[in-house]
Amino acid sequence: MLDPAVRIDEARFWRTVERSATIGPGRPGGLARVALSEADRQMRERFVAWCREAGCTVTIDRVGNIFARRAGTEPDLPPVLVGSHLDTQVNGGRYDGVIGVLAGLEIVRTLNDRGVATRRPIEIVSWTNEEGARFSPPMIASGAFAGVYEVDWVLARRDDDGKVFGEELERIGFAGPAPVGGRPLDAYFELHIEQGPLLEEQAVDVGIVTRGYAVRGYVVEVRGETAHTGPWPMDKRKNALVGAAMLAVAVNDIGWAYHASGGKATAARLVAWPNKPGILSDWAQVTVDVRHEDPAVADRMAQALLDALPACARRSNCAFRVVDQWVFGDERFDPECVGLLREAAARLGLPTIDLASQAGHDAYHLAKVAPMAMLFTPCAGGITHNNNEHAELAYTAPGVNVLLHAVVARADR
Amino acid sequence: MLDPAVRIDEARFWRTVERSATIGPGRPGGLARVALSEADRQMRERFVAWCREAGCTVTIDRVGNIFARRAGTEPDLPPVLVGSHLDTQVNGGRYDGVIGVLAGLEIVRTLNDRGVATRRPIEIVSWTNEEGARFSPPMIASGAFAGVYEVDWVLARRDDDGKVFGEELERIGFAGPAPVGGRPLDAYFELHIEQGPLLEEQAVDVGIVTRGYAVRGYVVEVRGETAHTGPWPMDKRKNALVGAAMLAVAVNDIGWAYHASGGKATAARLVAWPNKPGILSDWAQVTVDVRHEDPAVADRMAQALLDALPACARRSNCAFRVVDQWVFGDERFDPECVGLLREAAARLGLPTIDLASQAGHDAYHLAKVAPMAMLFTPCAGGITHNNNEHAELAYTAPGVNVLLHAVVARADR
Repeated sequence: MLDPAVRIDEARFWRTVERSATIGPGRPGGLARVALSEADRQMRERFVAWCREAGCTVTIDRVGNIFARRAGTEPDLPPVLVGSHLDTQVNGGRYDGVIGVLAGLEIVRTLNDRGVATRRPIEIVSWTNEEGARFSPPMIASGAFAGVYEVDWVLARRDDDGKVFGEELERIGFAGPAPVGGRPLDAYFELHIEQGPLLEEQAVDVGIVTRGYAVRGYVVEVRGETAHTGPWPMDKRKNALVGAAMLAVAVNDIGWAYHASGGKATAARLVAWPNKPGILSDWAQVTVDVRHEDPAVADRMAQALLDALPACARRSNCAFRVVDQWVFGDERFDPECVGLLREAAARLGLPTIDLASQAGHDAYHLAKVAPMAMLFTPCAGGITHNNNEHAELAYTAPGVNVLLHAVVARADR
Repeated sequence: MLDPAVRIDEARFWRTVERSATIGPGRPGGLARVALSEADRQMRERFVAWCREAGCTVTIDRVGNIFARRAGTEPDLPPVLVGSHLDTQVNGGRYDGVIGVLAGLEIVRTLNDRGVATRRPIEIVSWTNEEGARFSPPMIASGAFAGVYEVDWVLARRDDDGKVFGEELERIGFAGPAPVGGRPLDAYFELHIEQGPLLEEQAVDVGIVTRGYAVRGYVVEVRGETAHTGPWPMDKRKNALVGAAMLAVAVNDIGWAYHASGGKATAARLVAWPNKPGILSDWAQVTVDVRHEDPAVADRMAQALLDALPACARRSNCAFRVVDQWVFGDERFDPECVGLLREAAARLGLPTIDLASQAGHDAYHLAKVAPMAMLFTPCAGGITHNNNEHAELAYTAPGVNVLLHAVVARADR
């Protein structure tokens, strides 16, 4: 067991976070470091350099996931993975994902400082395109790692400008040779900002994630007919844009209907074609989801959403079809790994609260291939996916210390 | 007066229309010949060659409008313009605009065949970007010609990919040297497919346009805040995409409320940012319009639309602002020019009906700088802005013959 007195180098950790915050500036105070952009390349190169300086062996897989391995005393044992993602939304903050990866780096640096060897290797990981801000779906590369998505399918994804994932990955020099997944892992730990207000409200710095909100998401396609916006009479119109708008409003209404019990429903994306003045659109697609802490309620919200489709179809005279759907939030947070986080916090004398994750995380996919646990650190006002996202060292460092002790405990198991 | 026995060469006219239909193919049977595209370049080059073969002097102005002049016996007199546009929607037909330009060409060819000289010059015109399928607003270059838009403003317009009007015009070789407008015109005539079902229903081939539907259009901007689609509670959300969707639905409802008296209301375009999974949008823009034959009713519809904005703002917690607006349909159809069309039809023994134009046309802008008249020819089922748009020579040629006789009558005045 790691000496309970060992702590990370807080100043070094925060300098590293602040250095990351200079790469890919977005709106004031925020980042726009979307996946496979020039900014992402710069951040990846910086991160790889840091990892090599820390003595790690860096491996990049075919979908651009970066693994930086610190050898264990029994190097053939499956590694303990610790990480998150370095990409951001187009109006992202400096901390979402980033501190989870850099916490992994700080753990390795701290162990190096102290000359601590672990039995199992520790690997810092940065997953590609977690945000889905450029390529859909989000968490695509951790999904590929966990076998949820085919590698070739991922490499063929296109962004809104038609650029191809695989080509962009080549362009930034991060199309690695390593196979994607398919190797044994001992465990996966992820530290993340809470993206909610509870830790701040309760003045607790460490949140133990015990479960995910149940999420049911859909991509709905709407088909109509093009016609002239002038003479074409209302009763002949099949304007797919209007059908899609009806669904967006209906989904938002469902969110309000479940608001009192913490439910949310979102219309996040709406695209239509031709979507031009003078012509009715004959195609639209809407990306929507519903979320609730109680899976049974989430199912009812999802049913309300599906029930809304025929009404929208009737009112807009368009055809609606679910073309993609997903469910997450029922992933298993491994009791043993969660226990290691609790024990570490207890050893360090840090109070914790249990939390549900309302957002999706790479950890959800990892749960399919490894025991997994997450911990949250506070962010001001719960604001995230916004340039005003804010975290401070004083309330972030306790979580990183807990992570350090839990990861070492697992790696020495 | 032109010998009442003179008719266009129908076969030649239709061959020309069919040749145009091979340039810029879109969906089966249709065209996707958007302004300043490669297809537009090819069509323009073909058109200019035809005009030169017909002995015309071709002039291109700074916004790419093409004028092909057949000299008059008094060459310094202001010309009679006849034309329309050669660009199409992305899912456009073969006839919308096209037959109006090629009717002008056929008139010149017919006069050449017969050795008919006119007192005033006749100019065939093709206006740039009538459809607005690529650069907004529609009818932008006839608007510039009529002094509604500044030339530099037009040249600086960007398409959805950020490409600049002026640069694209240079690229396709149609950034001409001629000043835009500012010269006297004797009259403007435009032949167009009806884009409605009335001529077909009444089995009449020639529609005399006597008025426009009153149109009130708006671009409405919606401002909200980005946030995470997961944890951010409904009562804090300011999802601009949802606000925009509410407006699109409200506008469509207004159209239905006035449907019985022939009113229409359209949400034609909706864009949002970031418009991505995982993040609420903080900006959206919706392009909407209302139309009614009765300007007073159109005003009431417009008021209903404006009245809907505060309700949408309240429900979506976003800020709404009208950032652009326009009015058309109150343009003056010149009684004398309209009379020439009626007289020509009477001389040719062709029945006509009077119609209102429900769509916008370049002629509307031209009304500001010249006496203007329009005539309509049938299109099957009123279908337009769709690859199934259909017209036939048998019911198009009568209109072209009427145009021929009216234009010559005006040019000899």
